Amino acid sequence: MDSRRSGNLPIVISSLLAILTTNQRDVSTDLLKHGLADLGAFRMLEDITAKVGPRLSGSVGAAKGVTWVQKEMLKLGFSNVGLVPCMVPHWVRGDVESGFIGSKKQPLSLCALGGSVATPKGGVTAGVIEVKSLEEATKLGKKAAGMIIFFNRAFDSSLPNTFGAYGGANDQRVRGASVAAAVGAVGVLVRSMTLAEDDEPHTGAMRYTEKVKQVPAAALGIKSANRLSAALKANPEIKITFTLSCKTLPDAPSASVIGEIVGSERPEEVIVMGGHLDSWDLGRGAHDDGAGVTQSLEALRLLKKLGLRPKRTIRVVAFMNEENGGRGAAAYAERVGKSKEIAYAAMESDAGGFMPRSFGVTEAKFEAVQPWAERLKVFGIERFSKGGGGADIAPLAAHGAILFGLQPENQRYFDYHHSRNDTIDKVNPRELEFGAMAMAMLAWLISEEGIQN
Amino acid sequence: MDSRRSGNLPIVISSLLAILTTNQRDVSTDLLKHGLADLGAFRMLEDITAKVGPRLSGSVGAAKGVTWVQKEMLKLGFSNVGLVPCMVPHWVRGDVESGFIGSKKQPLSLCALGGSVATPKGGVTAGVIEVKSLEEATKLGKKAAGMIIFFNRAFDSSLPNTFGAYGGANDQRVRGASVAAAVGAVGVLVRSMTLAEDDEPHTGAMRYTEKVKQVPAAALGIKSANRLSAALKANPEIKITFTLSCKTLPDAPSASVIGEIVGSERPEEVIVMGGHLDSWDLGRGAHDDGAGVTQSLEALRLLKKLGLRPKRTIRVVAFMNEENGGRGAAAYAERVGKSKEIAYAAMESDAGGFMPRSFGVTEAKFEAVQPWAERLKVFGIERFSKGGGGADIAPLAAHGAILFGLQPENQRYFDYHHSRNDTIDKVNPRELEFGAMAMAMLAWLISEEGIQN
Repeated sequence: MDSRRSGNLPIVISSLLAILTTNQRDVSTDLLKHGLADLGAFRMLEDITAKVGPRLSGSVGAAKGVTWVQKEMLKLGFSNVGLVPCMVPHWVRGDVESGFIGSKKQPLSLCALGGSVATPKGGVTAGVIEVKSLEEATKLGKKAAGMIIFFNRAFDSSLPNTFGAYGGANDQRVRGASVAAAVGAVGVLVRSMTLAEDDEPHTGAMRYTEKVKQVPAAALGIKSANRLSAALKANPEIKITFTLSCKTLPDAPSASVIGEIVGSERPEEVIVMGGHLDSWDLGRGAHDDGAGVTQSLEALRLLKKLGLRPKRTIRVVAFMNEENGGRGAAAYAERVGKSKEIAYAAMESDAGGFMPRSFGVTEAKFEAVQPWAERLKVFGIERFSKGGGGADIAPLAAHGAILFGLQPENQRYFDYHHSRNDTIDKVNPRELEFGAMAMAMLAWLISEEGIQN
Repeated sequence: MDSRRSGNLPIVISSLLAILTTNQRDVSTDLLKHGLADLGAFRMLEDITAKVGPRLSGSVGAAKGVTWVQKEMLKLGFSNVGLVPCMVPHWVRGDVESGFIGSKKQPLSLCALGGSVATPKGGVTAGVIEVKSLEEATKLGKKAAGMIIFFNRAFDSSLPNTFGAYGGANDQRVRGASVAAAVGAVGVLVRSMTLAEDDEPHTGAMRYTEKVKQVPAAALGIKSANRLSAALKANPEIKITFTLSCKTLPDAPSASVIGEIVGSERPEEVIVMGGHLDSWDLGRGAHDDGAGVTQSLEALRLLKKLGLRPKRTIRVVAFMNEENGGRGAAAYAERVGKSKEIAYAAMESDAGGFMPRSFGVTEAKFEAVQPWAERLKVFGIERFSKGGGGADIAPLAAHGAILFGLQPENQRYFDYHHSRNDTIDKVNPRELEFGAMAMAMLAWLISEEGIQN
């Protein structure tokens, strides 16, 4: 046969058939095979936690993180790799963090809450009043004057979902300082937001209310909180001292990082997969949220590796500044608003790199996505639950995006969250990969089938 | 009012009402509250792993384990606390375990497989042939004479369930030695049964086939297995040396431990909750299977603490010798067979103390238990799956028991299984407790509602 005339035709046809077959069959088997063999999310997470480390907004680590994601996206062959600039708060912890009880100087394990002012150089020394709520602090009235208020309401351990327990306690961390200062307190200590029983303090964002005096605020490790509570029961007059040297510098330039596969049929309809690139300065930002960033990268890598060409654009966004400002999310949403693209859907992973359990979804689309539930089961997704999203993709709802939030097993998350223990050794490579594969599968289903009105 | 005449009547009535109410309402809220506040399973697991340690059949640790469970049951106020004696194999590891590659003595991380004979005192030195299956070893024929056979088939990582991956690889560990010896091999090395990427060797039971020469068998850590494989590729003639000093002593007396709440209406119908008390000598037997024993104890403790009086007898059994003989399970089933009691149902926890995901159930009862699925969800149980049980309760099927097996999250299990890493720090207190609460709830449902034919 003369190959110049007709010999290439069968090859062309078989190639076309291969593409059709690949695109139409359930890709879950291939995702499992390549995902669990390569463990790409974990390889990337090992790399960023080792080479970049913690990535608090405004820090050298955050800047290195931006470069790391950009390079990784280019290496993986993503299209339209670029930055979405934003200005971020720039808070630094400083060198000094310490505290002790009484004249015997019984040590307290503590760390400044993110955003706190420093104490005077020699620390704050004052009597302590323990309270369990903001309301109780407010009711102290004049009794609080000159005192340190110790917010010691624990997580409600009877709640099966630890995020529920967190939600029920973290007003103390976020608002405690200003509530206490409003009645004259000179400083605030807050029981760490955790169910762990160790003595690691867990940081996290706090906010000052305008026109209220800014007083220093620190988190206590659980054992220290219990120790202080016991000391106060033994002697309510006891004084404590704590010293912080943190400060807020002027806002700094930073950026979120994006990269994508351009859709073959509806390139203007964009499906976002994302997590946040910044992390607290303690630990290495492994579960929070190196996991979400590397799972998003891995999900798109897998789709590329499988040779899939999605109908809609699938874009990875590594958001900057989720922890203490949300500026990256705001800047990205603003950019979407000014563009001609359609924010079709967005999914976020920011609840740790544990085994997936469900996807939250925008309530109005709960019924529409049910046909996909069965196809996600092999990745550990038991169901869709009502209410989707996460802090970084929430602003996209105003632009019409349907939101999804990956919901992994949550029992261990707050053991590590915002503490020195958020490190790579707490992440299981396969559990992390299951999240990445679930995101890849969901993005593929959204891209190919669309979400019904 | 004269309390001697009628004053006590309202108290009696309200007490009766309280009992009825407690018995009839869904107890899940109370289980959650007390379980997650007390974390009783973890407290017990901390205690047994710290004070007793590893508990291989026939060892001092196993004997201490029997005493520990007995004391714990008495302390918890269980009824009819007692022992079910059995004779157990008594294998000891000995002091010497080492191995190296070639004349440069590149070290290999290895441990004897349970049941292996020792090497000669100076070790076995021989050439090595790497194979991936028992069949491949058999096909070596005369080439195997005088050689060490290296079974290096890895887990199939693409299987979502790691127990499936384990099942697909562990014939190498269990039967490799005799298959290799049948074609003249002088020793066997087996890639550890794990998906972890470290260099910890994982032990586990191996069995010799009758009339085949018994040759020494050891497990290699994954990095060592990869190192050896690479060394063989570089130089197929390379020799290795390994030395083991393990031996099998005469069978020793031991026992399983039982304790119960006697049923109020059908005391002769017994529901078993159990795990195995023995553990491999490496590690501390935390996930395998201190978890199952302490979850079973905790489940009954919770039912007692809630003041529940079950209609049927609920019994905890801490089985001896699951790992290398199943003698405890056999002796317990034999005792049941000789008694007048009815083996109504049995549930086992022997898959790690991770977050529950499902309960396996005897296939014929799959439909009958569906009404309970919803009431178990709060404990992490997503569904019943077909096929129930576990090694220790399997013999009870012949006596009519309906079998249930707790199936927790399984990604991490083989990272620790049978290795030095099976320690308490790998167990999350809440995840362990969820398993205990799920078992308590299921036992209560079985007891109160019975299982329909």
